[in-house]
Amino acid sequence: MLAYMTQVSREKATRFLGPDSATRDLAVDLYLQIANLPLLCPHGHVDPALFTDPDYSFGSPVDLLLLPDHYLLRMLRSQGISYESLGIPDRQGSGGQIEHRQIWQIFADNFHLFRATPSGIWLTLELEDVFGITEKLNGDNAQGIYDQIAAHLETKAFRPRALFERFAIEVLCTTDAATSALKDHKVLKETGWKGRVLPTFRPDTLVNIEAPSWDLKIEKLSQVSGIAVGDYASFLAALEQRRAAFKALGATATDHGLRSAATQSMDAREAEALFRRALRGEADEADAEAFTAHMLIEMARMSSEDGLVMQMHVGAFRNHDTNLFERYGSDRGADIPTSVEFTRNLRPLLERYGHHANFRLVLFTLDESVYARELAPLAGYYPAVRIGPPWWFHDSLNGIERFLEQVSETAGIYNLAGFNDDTRAFPSIPARHEVWRRGVCNWLAGLVLRGVVDETEAAEMAVALAYQLAKDTYRLNEE
Amino acid sequence: MLAYMTQVSREKATRFLGPDSATRDLAVDLYLQIANLPLLCPHGHVDPALFTDPDYSFGSPVDLLLLPDHYLLRMLRSQGISYESLGIPDRQGSGGQIEHRQIWQIFADNFHLFRATPSGIWLTLELEDVFGITEKLNGDNAQGIYDQIAAHLETKAFRPRALFERFAIEVLCTTDAATSALKDHKVLKETGWKGRVLPTFRPDTLVNIEAPSWDLKIEKLSQVSGIAVGDYASFLAALEQRRAAFKALGATATDHGLRSAATQSMDAREAEALFRRALRGEADEADAEAFTAHMLIEMARMSSEDGLVMQMHVGAFRNHDTNLFERYGSDRGADIPTSVEFTRNLRPLLERYGHHANFRLVLFTLDESVYARELAPLAGYYPAVRIGPPWWFHDSLNGIERFLEQVSETAGIYNLAGFNDDTRAFPSIPARHEVWRRGVCNWLAGLVLRGVVDETEAAEMAVALAYQLAKDTYRLNEE
Amino acid sequence: MLAYMTQVSREKATRFLGPDSATRDLAVDLYLQIANLPLLCPHGHVDPALFTDPDYSFGSPVDLLLLPDHYLLRMLRSQGISYESLGIPDRQGSGGQIEHRQIWQIFADNFHLFRATPSGIWLTLELEDVFGITEKLNGDNAQGIYDQIAAHLETKAFRPRALFERFAIEVLCTTDAATSALKDHKVLKETGWKGRVLPTFRPDTLVNIEAPSWDLKIEKLSQVSGIAVGDYASFLAALEQRRAAFKALGATATDHGLRSAATQSMDAREAEALFRRALRGEADEADAEAFTAHMLIEMARMSSEDGLVMQMHVGAFRNHDTNLFERYGSDRGADIPTSVEFTRNLRPLLERYGHHANFRLVLFTLDESVYARELAPLAGYYPAVRIGPPWWFHDSLNGIERFLEQVSETAGIYNLAGFNDDTRAFPSIPARHEVWRRGVCNWLAGLVLRGVVDETEAAEMAVALAYQLAKDTYRLNEE
Repeated sequence: MLAYMTQVSREKATRFLGPDSATRDLAVDLYLQIANLPLLCPHGHVDPALFTDPDYSFGSPVDLLLLPDHYLLRMLRSQGISYESLGIPDRQGSGGQIEHRQIWQIFADNFHLFRATPSGIWLTLELEDVFGITEKLNGDNAQGIYDQIAAHLETKAFRPRALFERFAIEVLCTTDAATSALKDHKVLKETGWKGRVLPTFRPDTLVNIEAPSWDLKIEKLSQVSGIAVGDYASFLAALEQRRAAFKALGATATDHGLRSAATQSMDAREAEALFRRALRGEADEADAEAFTAHMLIEMARMSSEDGLVMQMHVGAFRNHDTNLFERYGSDRGADIPTSVEFTRNLRPLLERYGHHANFRLVLFTLDESVYARELAPLAGYYPAVRIGPPWWFHDSLNGIERFLEQVSETAGIYNLAGFNDDTRAFPSIPARHEVWRRGVCNWLAGLVLRGVVDETEAAEMAVALAYQLAKDTYRLNEE
Repeated sequence: MLAYMTQVSREKATRFLGPDSATRDLAVDLYLQIANLPLLCPHGHVDPALFTDPDYSFGSPVDLLLLPDHYLLRMLRSQGISYESLGIPDRQGSGGQIEHRQIWQIFADNFHLFRATPSGIWLTLELEDVFGITEKLNGDNAQGIYDQIAAHLETKAFRPRALFERFAIEVLCTTDAATSALKDHKVLKETGWKGRVLPTFRPDTLVNIEAPSWDLKIEKLSQVSGIAVGDYASFLAALEQRRAAFKALGATATDHGLRSAATQSMDAREAEALFRRALRGEADEADAEAFTAHMLIEMARMSSEDGLVMQMHVGAFRNHDTNLFERYGSDRGADIPTSVEFTRNLRPLLERYGHHANFRLVLFTLDESVYARELAPLAGYYPAVRIGPPWWFHDSLNGIERFLEQVSETAGIYNLAGFNDDTRAFPSIPARHEVWRRGVCNWLAGLVLRGVVDETEAAEMAVALAYQLAKDTYRLNEE
Repeated sequence: MLAYMTQVSREKATRFLGPDSATRDLAVDLYLQIANLPLLCPHGHVDPALFTDPDYSFGSPVDLLLLPDHYLLRMLRSQGISYESLGIPDRQGSGGQIEHRQIWQIFADNFHLFRATPSGIWLTLELEDVFGITEKLNGDNAQGIYDQIAAHLETKAFRPRALFERFAIEVLCTTDAATSALKDHKVLKETGWKGRVLPTFRPDTLVNIEAPSWDLKIEKLSQVSGIAVGDYASFLAALEQRRAAFKALGATATDHGLRSAATQSMDAREAEALFRRALRGEADEADAEAFTAHMLIEMARMSSEDGLVMQMHVGAFRNHDTNLFERYGSDRGADIPTSVEFTRNLRPLLERYGHHANFRLVLFTLDESVYARELAPLAGYYPAVRIGPPWWFHDSLNGIERFLEQVSETAGIYNLAGFNDDTRAFPSIPARHEVWRRGVCNWLAGLVLRGVVDETEAAEMAVALAYQLAKDTYRLNEE
């Protein structure tokens, strides 16, 4: 059991394990050996501001559990419940005047929608293990449960720092724009609090020369880096300055969100000309794609120099619904995966840096068909490549099982990056790790029962997948 | 057990459940709660003429079970058994003179080919539960079994209407060309028979301007609609007339069979020009693709107005073997799936109608790789979208399991369209529903055993998946 | 158990079966009925020279087990162990001076990398069943195990011919360049040894007009065929001569390794013009693709005439890492799969030869997403098509299960080609067949437990999948 849980029933010990009793029994044994390992969170979207103020409050239960969680919002919307009725504020900040108890009631009335979904599982675990609420949420008990959560949230035990410690989080990495001055991270470093919260360098909006208000981002880059970005060379220099600044605050990784995995170098003169076109506002879509493909190789080059682990998250068609985007902005549930190609696309990058001793590349996909076909063979050959855990829609009981079954035979488990929770919902972190760890143990139990590995090996593999591989992959032991 | 079964052995109660005993036991419990629910058949290809004449006879066992079933024919052919030897008539109607007992013998001699296939399962269930034949078909008992079936078929209990009632079919939707005058449906409405058999509007041959003898189809449309189709505007008006006529006879849905899911509007002037080129016989392949992509959005617009549920069946490369097509025509087993893309392709349609309160879109695919990657995220966001059940080759024990595991976590089950049997083989309908219902219960049992849902929730989900979701999705309760 | 195993523990009898006890018990019963069937090896890469000399020695344990196995080498490399340190000789033959005991130590120190991989399983079985070593290899026992293997290799029982007989291999097909004079096969035929070792015709380097030193290959073709290849017509004649020569030495099949499955005829004049451009060194990439697509149809034509079974292995992006290729050459672990399309690509070939009574086409893929979507429907319709077993990365416990579950429902098992081991590692052959046979029995046990087939049917299906289908598909009973 994870350390933050106080009491453990037999039912709780075996949850998500099985279905047959031999698998369940063996999986419990394995799980008990890793349940208390600290949590490593090398990639996620928690706001560092949660930890700068020791008295930070999460607000209402709806502020905490519902409004920031686009997994929940989109599902309600899919059944015709409008964002208006859920009090989602629009981009101008208006529209959020619905009473939170009323929003919570709508959520509870429709909680059956989350049956068999990871959102349903996480929320159930969260209510039970973080808030001690074992009743299943429904329309009848909605207000009572609201009261219980709200009461907890007023106590000191539910300040972010207290939960961080209760959850036994060893390190938590945030995701920060390359143009961020990292104010919160600096403040954090100055407080005496010993929680380890590290920034991650994400340059997407700078690299995507077609992104809205790209010019303003470049301006911001100039300001924050102290390097006036007027050409391609100064652009690179400013990026390198930011990477160094992130690293100085403990960052060990970069992150790149991409629709395609295309990589392709251009020569310096071409890059310079293209960058200047972009500065003049004359770059077109083809320019943008070519520049992104080029910059990925440049980022790999910088990673091979400064040792920041490079992450690529590939395959999201973001803001699929323009109307929603224009009214409510990004991260509102309208991101839809597309098919992904790695074998051809990554070749230019891997031929150059795939063997570099200091380079590490963690690959994530929303297209499961590449697990066995492309990712496992690539990771099973190139020393730099590690496979990230099942991402987003696939971070689920079935998704975890499919992932392990499809990548492990060709890549082995030692070319995997372990787990990361990738969440902005801070109190859901233990639930997410628990589902991964239980999924891992159930899979390992099956291997033991079929004589593929023995129990000693399985126990070592469980520790690796729950803890050690993430630590090694993200160089978290190199502080 | 379904109502049409009289006696139930333990073996029969547990069939297709398991493999482990805990899963099987729990799945049986769930199954017993839904086995007697009526059958909803919102999409299929049964000929409405079966029901207009109270004394309609199915003909010989070969007429009933083999000749209309291209799943069976293609498998025999794949092992070198010619369509000639099976007495398949060609397009001119000649070639069907083989004695039916001889054809049946060939089928029985090769019945091992269907081991582990859904065709084998359906036929076995059909023989057992509809005809009371528990012996496994083989070369030795072929003629005896033929006799038994033939004897049954001569009785009143085996008239289509009697079977319809015995099968407890609540509603059966046929699929009808948009140009159909719906004669049989009109006759049916006039008879006193209370079986609910409804038409479905399928405009494929009118929309595909490249289809052979498209001009004759347009002519037929003019006749049946009473609107002389001479330009794009009158084409739309005639389609709307037909939709209204279908709706008047109880239709609740349309159906669109497509190789690709591409949707893209053109402006009215462009559409008009293109349509006129088509009328002059001057449209090319690109025109045809563009027109289909455009018309899908027009069909969505009409659905948002008249409330007919829009179905898209995407991914069949029909008539893959030109020689076969030229000799024997369509639906002879030579349709092969291809890969499908929804995320980019459906965006123009969904941006416009995906949130329309009156619009509903049911998506079917022959490419399982889109289940988790594209369909579940789309249905889990857009209010209009529901995911159709596993289609055609994937309507099978494994196919059902893969489907449920891959769509439910992201879409939830309440964004699914329940089941439809999609068959032209009327007596196989109960078998197909039984396989689905058992597959559902087995999956749910696994969820209960792993603590994902409890038994009460599982029982509700079983009813939803077996009955209620189809009813709601296809608006069958809105008569 | 396979005949070459002397003692069988209960643990050994049940390995890889389960995970639940009902499945395991039934699967063991099935397995015991097929474990002693002879091995058919209709496709593989064993060197025929192993059998020409009765006293052929395998060399050191490293020569035997490690150096020829790029599955093992690539995995070590993926964790940063250089090919230099493993004593891999480069293309010039230098660099292989590392002491073999030292290489073995590195391998043993890192043997945990192969946990849960097929390589790990095969090697474990091989050590146990071929060499009688039951200890798990690790850094501590590495040298002791090295000694034991080395001692065995010096005995007569470990000559290739002795192992061939101990393994109960009924027939072993090698893969030979179309330009090979088949010297070893001729020698073999002349010795009195009764082991059946047959060549397979592989014309890839002749068909790929862009391959390095294609002109030299054409020259070699002229020499070995005795037909001066100066134009397209003489090229075809020379290929036909080689096919006849292979057939005369017992060949029953051809093999074609391809990145894409594209097939497309060109007319004779075009082919002639293109071939002449190639001879002049003026062909470009588009020419090469068009010529390969054309030649596949020509090869199908020749197969329909001479009855050699045509194999297509599709989807490997070979030599993904140019640096490695330039230093170490091919087959060094840097081959990465890509997505594959069959439905559209094979249509021109299948429309022409898919129904030819004398033509047989066995399809292999590295893209599992085509199993259910394309391969099973194609094999379930076209009489010529059989589906090859899970290939390369997918020849594994999970890969076998996915394969059987995804192809059998639509194609039935009688459109499968049974198993082939496709290995260059001769002593791993029994292990590979054992994993397949156990995978098959486990799958069949599940079908029996769920009532899909009965035990008698399952036993017949096990024999078919383990032995008979390979024999029939590859026409090995037609000698």
